[in-house]
Amino acid sequence: MILTVTLNTALDLTYGVPELVPHASHRVSEMSERPGGKGLNVARVLSALGHRTVVTGFAGGATGTALRELLAGLSPQEPGGPDAPHGPGGTDAPEPGAAPAATAPAPITDALVTVAGNTRRTIAVVDRTTGDTTQLNEPGPLVSADEWAALLGRYEELLAGADAVALCGSLPPGIHVGAYAELVRSARTAGVPVLLDTSGEPLRRGIAARPDLIKPNADELAQLTGSREPMRATRDARRRGAHGVIASLGPDGMLAVTPDGVWQAAPPARVLGNPTGAGDSAVAGLLSGLVEGLSWPDRLRRAVALSTATVLSPTAGDFDRAAYEELLPRVGIEEHAPAAR
Amino acid sequence: MILTVTLNTALDLTYGVPELVPHASHRVSEMSERPGGKGLNVARVLSALGHRTVVTGFAGGATGTALRELLAGLSPQEPGGPDAPHGPGGTDAPEPGAAPAATAPAPITDALVTVAGNTRRTIAVVDRTTGDTTQLNEPGPLVSADEWAALLGRYEELLAGADAVALCGSLPPGIHVGAYAELVRSARTAGVPVLLDTSGEPLRRGIAARPDLIKPNADELAQLTGSREPMRATRDARRRGAHGVIASLGPDGMLAVTPDGVWQAAPPARVLGNPTGAGDSAVAGLLSGLVEGLSWPDRLRRAVALSTATVLSPTAGDFDRAAYEELLPRVGIEEHAPAAR
Repeated sequence: MILTVTLNTALDLTYGVPELVPHASHRVSEMSERPGGKGLNVARVLSALGHRTVVTGFAGGATGTALRELLAGLSPQEPGGPDAPHGPGGTDAPEPGAAPAATAPAPITDALVTVAGNTRRTIAVVDRTTGDTTQLNEPGPLVSADEWAALLGRYEELLAGADAVALCGSLPPGIHVGAYAELVRSARTAGVPVLLDTSGEPLRRGIAARPDLIKPNADELAQLTGSREPMRATRDARRRGAHGVIASLGPDGMLAVTPDGVWQAAPPARVLGNPTGAGDSAVAGLLSGLVEGLSWPDRLRRAVALSTATVLSPTAGDFDRAAYEELLPRVGIEEHAPAAR
Repeated sequence: MILTVTLNTALDLTYGVPELVPHASHRVSEMSERPGGKGLNVARVLSALGHRTVVTGFAGGATGTALRELLAGLSPQEPGGPDAPHGPGGTDAPEPGAAPAATAPAPITDALVTVAGNTRRTIAVVDRTTGDTTQLNEPGPLVSADEWAALLGRYEELLAGADAVALCGSLPPGIHVGAYAELVRSARTAGVPVLLDTSGEPLRRGIAARPDLIKPNADELAQLTGSREPMRATRDARRRGAHGVIASLGPDGMLAVTPDGVWQAAPPARVLGNPTGAGDSAVAGLLSGLVEGLSWPDRLRRAVALSTATVLSPTAGDFDRAAYEELLPRVGIEEHAPAAR
């Protein structure tokens, strides 16, 4: 199974309004609610790819209860029982580069730690006239030292059964800035490959603990290294401690600087759409490919095809499966010469 | 006790943001949550005035649970037990016109009917730069025929112990437009004075069932009667079936056309502030005055002082008690000559 950690989960609400007019009153014409926070988004894509996933992190209060009910509703019904086989595993790798199209969605197990505070809400107000989104993000709950200790205990237990782990998103109030470094070290001690996807000081501290992978975007990379030149910034990030750095270049694809080589992967064409969740889909692509034993080029193809198919999806954060399967063989991969490494 | 009915309750969220910029992302810097819907706001003011209040209506889903928890938190702790005396009753009227300042807050009893759907949220986004508010209102839950029947049963039981009843706010989806007319008739059959505070077609239908009081504002009155001339519109509303019409004239106070006479009541000066909840405070003033056996001029003084003190309060929907007590003796009352009636 793949473990995802989301310390600052969120109940994500999307409100459609005919037009957003500041200082006016609006009747919300369409609304949707879904469990959010980056690690939960990653889990949803992993599930769609047929990977059993366990999610941990914090949830609390009435919003936490609502989030967990929605999360339970995401998991597929299982006529074969919980032990029925689900899609690709580490010993059952599909043909490299092939889309796991035939696999059924795999279950997502809720291993969240209950906290006293209220899980935050995020509200995306979509203006149906312009298509633009205005975002309102509540602060997360204050997490106590005891709650953090409970999370650490739960995490250690879960690592024992994990093939890989993703540490995702921002830290809620009360969690020390070196929290991800602590979680990276535990994963490395347990021998579980660990991907860190965060930003700012938690990223800086986390990298020093030597995660297997980080997946920064251009802004996060510039904040970390001071450089906006992708190759220079990515190499700098590796020197800071990350074994592999997969830099997201937005519509231009990804640059991967790894111990095994350097690759650039690009979608066949630029696409227009909503980039929300594209980075989380890329994380799911990278981790599933790692667990399936895919080569770096095939992992990158999957990550780029999944994130492009997420931009193309009409629902923010979901990926368009038909677009994914169509894009997968068409992602361009360029290997940099060893001298360039 | 006084009964308030809120068919479309709401979990009211207020988000403070440094500045609301459409199509940008905002970190909510301050937030508050409170149980909302007009009848719940009325109950909160009645409680502060020392009147025991029972609230009914619908609540459901995770948001309904959150609303009920917040509602339970509003009720004062009762060292004297639930049978201890609370403030003024029908047989214990204070000096006319006097503020019930010495009374302790009285309990608010939750008699909401649980429904399958989710109670709606309303979100008030307050721009801390301009002080302006942008409002987002979710649609209410779809209420089934069985749930409406359950509400009618609960309402009939509660009427048996009620000194007065307020029917407040909009109708959620699934509730027929004549619902308030039905509730007005039951109250009249039970001999309980009934105040109806709604708008549009539910108000039009409700008036025909002959409520004791309605409290429309200028817009609601114009929509009902087609006239923006207060005296003409108010008299027209009486002819449609309401025994007494208390028209809210905003900062100019109130015009009362009743079987006992016609009065105009005005605050000593125009005030600046947030008018949210001022109408609900006026309803609480009118109903508490009725139950205490106050004269019309004293009821109007209280209603105008309470709604003005609500506009002055820094917290939307609360009233400023010191301002209320200071304003009460200074509300101007003008009685119209019998010929004008």
